[in-house]
Amino acid sequence: MRQSELFTRVERNAPKDEATVNAQLLHRAGFVDKLMSGVYSYLPLGLQVLRNIEQIVREEMNAIGGQEVLMPVLHPKSIWEKSGGWDRIDVLFKLESRTGKEYALGQSEEEVVTPLVMKRVQTYQDLPLAVYQIHWKFRDELRSKSGLLRGVEFFMKDMYSFHESQEDFDRFYGIVRKAYLKIFERAGLVAKATEASGGSFSEKISYEFMVLTDAGEDDILYCDVCEFCVNVTIAKQAVGSACPGCKQGKLHKARASEVGNVFDLGEKYAKDFDLTFVGRDKKKHHPVMGCYGVGVSRLMGVVVEKFHDEKGIIWPESVAPFRAHLLELGNASAKEVYDYLQTQGVEVLYDDRNASAGEKFVEADLIGIPWRLVVSEKTGGKVEVKHRTSKDAKLVTKEELVNAMKIQTKT
Amino acid sequence: MRQSELFTRVERNAPKDEATVNAQLLHRAGFVDKLMSGVYSYLPLGLQVLRNIEQIVREEMNAIGGQEVLMPVLHPKSIWEKSGGWDRIDVLFKLESRTGKEYALGQSEEEVVTPLVMKRVQTYQDLPLAVYQIHWKFRDELRSKSGLLRGVEFFMKDMYSFHESQEDFDRFYGIVRKAYLKIFERAGLVAKATEASGGSFSEKISYEFMVLTDAGEDDILYCDVCEFCVNVTIAKQAVGSACPGCKQGKLHKARASEVGNVFDLGEKYAKDFDLTFVGRDKKKHHPVMGCYGVGVSRLMGVVVEKFHDEKGIIWPESVAPFRAHLLELGNASAKEVYDYLQTQGVEVLYDDRNASAGEKFVEADLIGIPWRLVVSEKTGGKVEVKHRTSKDAKLVTKEELVNAMKIQTKT
Repeated sequence: MRQSELFTRVERNAPKDEATVNAQLLHRAGFVDKLMSGVYSYLPLGLQVLRNIEQIVREEMNAIGGQEVLMPVLHPKSIWEKSGGWDRIDVLFKLESRTGKEYALGQSEEEVVTPLVMKRVQTYQDLPLAVYQIHWKFRDELRSKSGLLRGVEFFMKDMYSFHESQEDFDRFYGIVRKAYLKIFERAGLVAKATEASGGSFSEKISYEFMVLTDAGEDDILYCDVCEFCVNVTIAKQAVGSACPGCKQGKLHKARASEVGNVFDLGEKYAKDFDLTFVGRDKKKHHPVMGCYGVGVSRLMGVVVEKFHDEKGIIWPESVAPFRAHLLELGNASAKEVYDYLQTQGVEVLYDDRNASAGEKFVEADLIGIPWRLVVSEKTGGKVEVKHRTSKDAKLVTKEELVNAMKIQTKT
Repeated sequence: MRQSELFTRVERNAPKDEATVNAQLLHRAGFVDKLMSGVYSYLPLGLQVLRNIEQIVREEMNAIGGQEVLMPVLHPKSIWEKSGGWDRIDVLFKLESRTGKEYALGQSEEEVVTPLVMKRVQTYQDLPLAVYQIHWKFRDELRSKSGLLRGVEFFMKDMYSFHESQEDFDRFYGIVRKAYLKIFERAGLVAKATEASGGSFSEKISYEFMVLTDAGEDDILYCDVCEFCVNVTIAKQAVGSACPGCKQGKLHKARASEVGNVFDLGEKYAKDFDLTFVGRDKKKHHPVMGCYGVGVSRLMGVVVEKFHDEKGIIWPESVAPFRAHLLELGNASAKEVYDYLQTQGVEVLYDDRNASAGEKFVEADLIGIPWRLVVSEKTGGKVEVKHRTSKDAKLVTKEELVNAMKIQTKT
């Protein structure tokens, strides 16, 4: 798209009320706009990133047999009373209609999905099932000062699975674990699967998927040799002690952000709603349920925390709003290159504005699109191509561009 | 996709608490599930229809230069106080955080979009601008008994435009009007542009886009010769009187459902928020704003109201969840046809379940996918192809299928 048509503008200064790097850079580069603490609008470039992450998550959930649905935000009080969440969950937003009906805003959807799925399940032959949605959720957070990392209103993938036995849940958990690591890898991140407490959902052990970042809101202990990792809140070990997993490594402490989680819900919700299936023994059973979250808007924030430098954001290609940022400088015209790239299926942001070269370079670095292409009087009919992470640019012809953008000079 | 893997089931009977055809059929065919009055979950087939309609709307809004954003559901009380909506709008849902902060749930977003856009606008050269979102909205409706036609929680496209003058707004309104008629046409509907009152938004005349259907919640007077059409609530004419437009036709009364609307907001919101731009005369001006809605989930309901018969839904191809419904009967296998159609890019629902031919035929008619393909022992290696609206089927080879599905036997 033509940058001159974009209503957003890059801003030189970070807003004073944003403390985290992700919020500062995303605001300055015109990806998001804060309406109030923990609540953001997604502007055209930001919405594109959010959709890219959403699509990665959707593809990986579909690949393991997840069926996509969309459940309501507004829930009747009755279902939250059945699960005990109405009184137990302090972050649950509650409201009342003008006729006095009471509702909760969805912050997790076990209360909706359990009856929705189980009234369509008769026997063990209908199981296992995995149903997911990617939707907005709401949490009445006391503090929400981490930009997209802790939203009051946030975009999340939540999947729920239903099994005839604990063994089958364990089998499926292994499949989800792999899918999750693939999601984070596709978004350019390395996540660790960490043991944590079950929180308000469950007495059972849960797993969190953590990305190491100083902007995170959790502390973890991780082994420097094996994959052992545990949230400090439930860790039985101290920093520096031997790893209880491999017995070889030492435990290190690090700040991390939770980008996904898995809860073994057991039979809780099926029991709360009295929902059963007929098992192989012809008797009625409650299904064993699992709940699996990925914070989609949070992932966007974590990506920025991990990939930026003093000049701005450095988007991984998989989630970048555009693959190429085409700068037209001085009196040169980049229109022909723009048209050509579009015929080649390259998503390109075309900076056709009347602005100085210096301004365009600074703004391109801030926005952080992977490949910067420059057409100026100096490039003599060719195009200067440079990766956001590289210092070296090279001149290529229009026709050589697509190949030139395939060679990453640095990862 | 394989129907055996779908967790939804077709139901023989309509739920007792659903009075409208759209809600009954969509529930029975497994497209939606009612959580409470006016609040539905969208199941895999229903979500696909919703996404198809959403994409039509998105394409037409992009085509007229609309820039897509996503604004929050949760709004601070302060912005609704500035516009006067906090006390004036009776359908506004209000809630409070545990620390006593007050919020409204978005039911229209002038209060959010006006500052969002105008703080990025400096002069008339930055105008006109049109910004839209496709998002969930909330209205505290007293009665919500029309299925998807009147939601408490509903999916809507809302666009807002900003102009330096009334003339420019009028010009843009003409463009939106054409885009709207195209949206409804692409969804298989014929809509009339109707004069209506401005409602709570504006004192100015607004326009509603109406589809004639007995399930509608409005009454309109329309001319049988020209395009004149008016909501009875503001009509100065009586049924049977001469058309004030063409002076030739007569006015008829009909029940209709509003699928889109246009409001001339004037300078109200820019004044409420004290937002200006520098005009050609170098002086500060408030922009003239327009607001343009399309009810995406409502459109899904209206399509069902318009296109069904005693057997079930008849989806227009443009919004159908799949293009073809492939039924495998008896001991025959349709796997080869299924694989072939996927290589041809045909979206197909493959009924590979263990069920009788009668059951599969009845359910296919209820679900309403445009093309029914049957592979049975009787089809002798060929495929029986039939349009949902036709009584005539014909036998074709696998390779002839794609062409056979292009010829509509009936529209």
